Amino acid sequence: MRIDLNADVGESFGHYILGDDQALFKVITSANIACGFHAGDFTVMNKTVKAAKDNHLSVGAHPGFPDIQGFGRRNISMSETEVYEMVVYQIGALQAFCHIHHVALTHVKPHGALYNIAADDATIASAIAQAVFDIAPNAILFGLCNSQLLVAGNNIGLKTAGEAFADRKYDDTGRLVHRSHPNAVLTHFEDIEKQVENIVMKKQVETSSGKMIEIKADTLCFHGDGKNVVEIVRKTRKILEAKNVKVAPLEMV
Amino acid sequence: MRIDLNADVGESFGHYILGDDQALFKVITSANIACGFHAGDFTVMNKTVKAAKDNHLSVGAHPGFPDIQGFGRRNISMSETEVYEMVVYQIGALQAFCHIHHVALTHVKPHGALYNIAADDATIASAIAQAVFDIAPNAILFGLCNSQLLVAGNNIGLKTAGEAFADRKYDDTGRLVHRSHPNAVLTHFEDIEKQVENIVMKKQVETSSGKMIEIKADTLCFHGDGKNVVEIVRKTRKILEAKNVKVAPLEMV
Amino acid sequence: MRIDLNADVGESFGHYILGDDQALFKVITSANIACGFHAGDFTVMNKTVKAAKDNHLSVGAHPGFPDIQGFGRRNISMSETEVYEMVVYQIGALQAFCHIHHVALTHVKPHGALYNIAADDATIASAIAQAVFDIAPNAILFGLCNSQLLVAGNNIGLKTAGEAFADRKYDDTGRLVHRSHPNAVLTHFEDIEKQVENIVMKKQVETSSGKMIEIKADTLCFHGDGKNVVEIVRKTRKILEAKNVKVAPLEMV
Amino acid sequence: MRIDLNADVGESFGHYILGDDQALFKVITSANIACGFHAGDFTVMNKTVKAAKDNHLSVGAHPGFPDIQGFGRRNISMSETEVYEMVVYQIGALQAFCHIHHVALTHVKPHGALYNIAADDATIASAIAQAVFDIAPNAILFGLCNSQLLVAGNNIGLKTAGEAFADRKYDDTGRLVHRSHPNAVLTHFEDIEKQVENIVMKKQVETSSGKMIEIKADTLCFHGDGKNVVEIVRKTRKILEAKNVKVAPLEMV
Repeated sequence: MRIDLNADVGESFGHYILGDDQALFKVITSANIACGFHAGDFTVMNKTVKAAKDNHLSVGAHPGFPDIQGFGRRNISMSETEVYEMVVYQIGALQAFCHIHHVALTHVKPHGALYNIAADDATIASAIAQAVFDIAPNAILFGLCNSQLLVAGNNIGLKTAGEAFADRKYDDTGRLVHRSHPNAVLTHFEDIEKQVENIVMKKQVETSSGKMIEIKADTLCFHGDGKNVVEIVRKTRKILEAKNVKVAPLEMV
Repeated sequence: MRIDLNADVGESFGHYILGDDQALFKVITSANIACGFHAGDFTVMNKTVKAAKDNHLSVGAHPGFPDIQGFGRRNISMSETEVYEMVVYQIGALQAFCHIHHVALTHVKPHGALYNIAADDATIASAIAQAVFDIAPNAILFGLCNSQLLVAGNNIGLKTAGEAFADRKYDDTGRLVHRSHPNAVLTHFEDIEKQVENIVMKKQVETSSGKMIEIKADTLCFHGDGKNVVEIVRKTRKILEAKNVKVAPLEMV
Repeated sequence: MRIDLNADVGESFGHYILGDDQALFKVITSANIACGFHAGDFTVMNKTVKAAKDNHLSVGAHPGFPDIQGFGRRNISMSETEVYEMVVYQIGALQAFCHIHHVALTHVKPHGALYNIAADDATIASAIAQAVFDIAPNAILFGLCNSQLLVAGNNIGLKTAGEAFADRKYDDTGRLVHRSHPNAVLTHFEDIEKQVENIVMKKQVETSSGKMIEIKADTLCFHGDGKNVVEIVRKTRKILEAKNVKVAPLEMV
Repeated sequence: MRIDLNADVGESFGHYILGDDQALFKVITSANIACGFHAGDFTVMNKTVKAAKDNHLSVGAHPGFPDIQGFGRRNISMSETEVYEMVVYQIGALQAFCHIHHVALTHVKPHGALYNIAADDATIASAIAQAVFDIAPNAILFGLCNSQLLVAGNNIGLKTAGEAFADRKYDDTGRLVHRSHPNAVLTHFEDIEKQVENIVMKKQVETSSGKMIEIKADTLCFHGDGKNVVEIVRKTRKILEAKNVKVAPLEMV
């Protein structure tokens, strides 16, 4: 058995610091790096790509809506062409920093509202997949397990990775319970540990109604700005490795 | 004799249209395409790269300060590292659109205040040249004739192109008379024609004091949002071609 | 009979010019001035408030979503509290320019996507009305005829004005046919003239299905960036005045 | 003897939190609130004005350059008219939040690069003073002791307040040693305490060369994002009150 541990990083902006990327880099295996639209800027990107490489992590692009104030979590109505162009732009910018640091861009994961829309909207999913295919055909497309984004990626010929969330509650349809609901986020380590074990060992996750549903995850997401996230990932990793799960980045095509 | 005719294009933004790029593309040979910082956006960039390619133009990146409101014409105090990162980011984004349209990025020309600072500030000039060298080593660096930017480009091993302005008045030091001065911009076609002939045929330009100074230009810039610019370029081109000057893009390394 | 003629103005931004406000000011009676979020900036606002006053127009605030690239026409998902705060901010900024030019703020009209959402979403409509009430209680709230925005304004105690569109097609529910549909915008002057006469003289408008529905408009909107808009308003105004309709701004409480 | 203790607050932005304003509000007497240009947004402004009022603080506007990424610390070249309009806009926006919370705007203090430019550039200083005078004539203009900004404020008829810095080193001309220099910022509490006592009790400050120069401060600035700032202000306040210095906001005209 094998799993990748990813986190959204490089989300500081100018004078504003978010999360402790340096500590996180010691425990995760894949870094999703913000591209300056929902978070991050050219200085943060440069530093983050370098640090991710120095820590032997997989380096991915994390494109989002152009909305720093809303941190990319607000839907912005855009056509599929605009989404395509917006993703091409952001991946290109991140690729430039990968180039100067001689590191490959291994994956792409849309952020926030864009990620959520792409889970259910086949048109937007397809626009994102097309952008990745056109500009980074060897990169792995990360999407929510059972999402339209994975379907679109597979259809176009990209390698895809199903993503599950260590600390988010699922509903019976396999979607994440919205952040506005109480209990949307798991805060007790025991609950996170149990969910991770279910996902990795049993390919299942318990929903908010208590049902067990199937889930086939290649990578687990941890929230870089979550409380105690570094400690949580460290402990999770130990538990998984003790069960002979290989914790490692995904392999590109 | 040979000369390139360039213009700054792709400077529309969202709902705002600037200049008549389609008409301009019929008469120039090199297009400097805005990268979304001082003007342009991902939609405009996509369309502009495609149109430039369709018109067999050289496609260049035109990075500027992050300041749409000021159109990149306001100095923003930044360190050389920030300038380096800012230029890497913008070139990377434009390269992505070149990639999806299967066209080479032939040159880079900084915009507005960044261009002017790089004429005299060796540190900023060097940061820009380093960015181009690291991310697009075969691209030609455009800079004002006799500028620090050309020195920095040559020092690092880039091919460079000296740029002269068809419709801007020069001072005795070879710098452009500031836009705030009266007569900074030539508006009569006869004056523009005479300046172009001096620059291309005699390698000289007349300054605001009436002196003739030497200038060695590889490319002539026309302002895409200038009045009657398309007509001016068309007539200039005819006059040059009638004198057996080859009007063509520069050749990459 | 009496009608106000309004247009969205002050929508230039930095170097980008939109519409011919100066000419428009000679023919309309109310100016809706952009507040720097979807269009406009502090320089444009200053100039526009002054020019509107010099032309004896009613001066209104025209707040929109924070999205220059999308010109405020893209929905951005925001809570009602955020909408309230966003509108307070923009009205406050415009009031400052009214204050320095010694002119009253007579009305408020939300822009683009915000206007459309407020037509049907009672919660957002209420947030906007509350903002106007708290910060400019004597201002008239402009909203689409039969919209939730007018209901919210009336409920809270604001004076409201029903707005109709001279050049936009209506559907059977009294909503505007979306811009993406063919025939959404009337382009022949005869069609516009007929629609204006129906609205002003008969309190009716013909829908896209050919039905006549009731409409009670206090003010007619013309699109400042529309083709020939100045000529269209001039002719419309003449026709209305020939029929003894008083063309004048609305009166504040 | 009497002194005001001020801090720059409301500098969070969207998802990004900066400083611990709640704790700071318990120890300072005047709050300079960011207006959405260099920091802050409409949500942060609303919350901050309310909290400042609830803590019985003086509520001031803290306008800056339009540059969130640079936190308003980068010079942006603007004409005096643009600076005037930019300050009018920001004060107007903050006044709106003061209005809805029924609290007076007591003072205005420019931020970062704008503050520093206004210390020495009489034209920019005059533009800022004119903006305050036109839009908030009863507000007190805060400026660096012995600065052009105070001169401009006094000339136009505003009440002004000389500001000194508790934790910044001065040079022999009475200007702040630039942040890029080592020892520009005092970090030991004993040094801060000594500087505060010199400023408040002796109307003097020791410069980096060891000289004592005169300084006549009405208000002391503490940096809200500084390390241990709350503890530093609390202790400073105790020391001052023990020496019978009245720690209180300034009084408006």
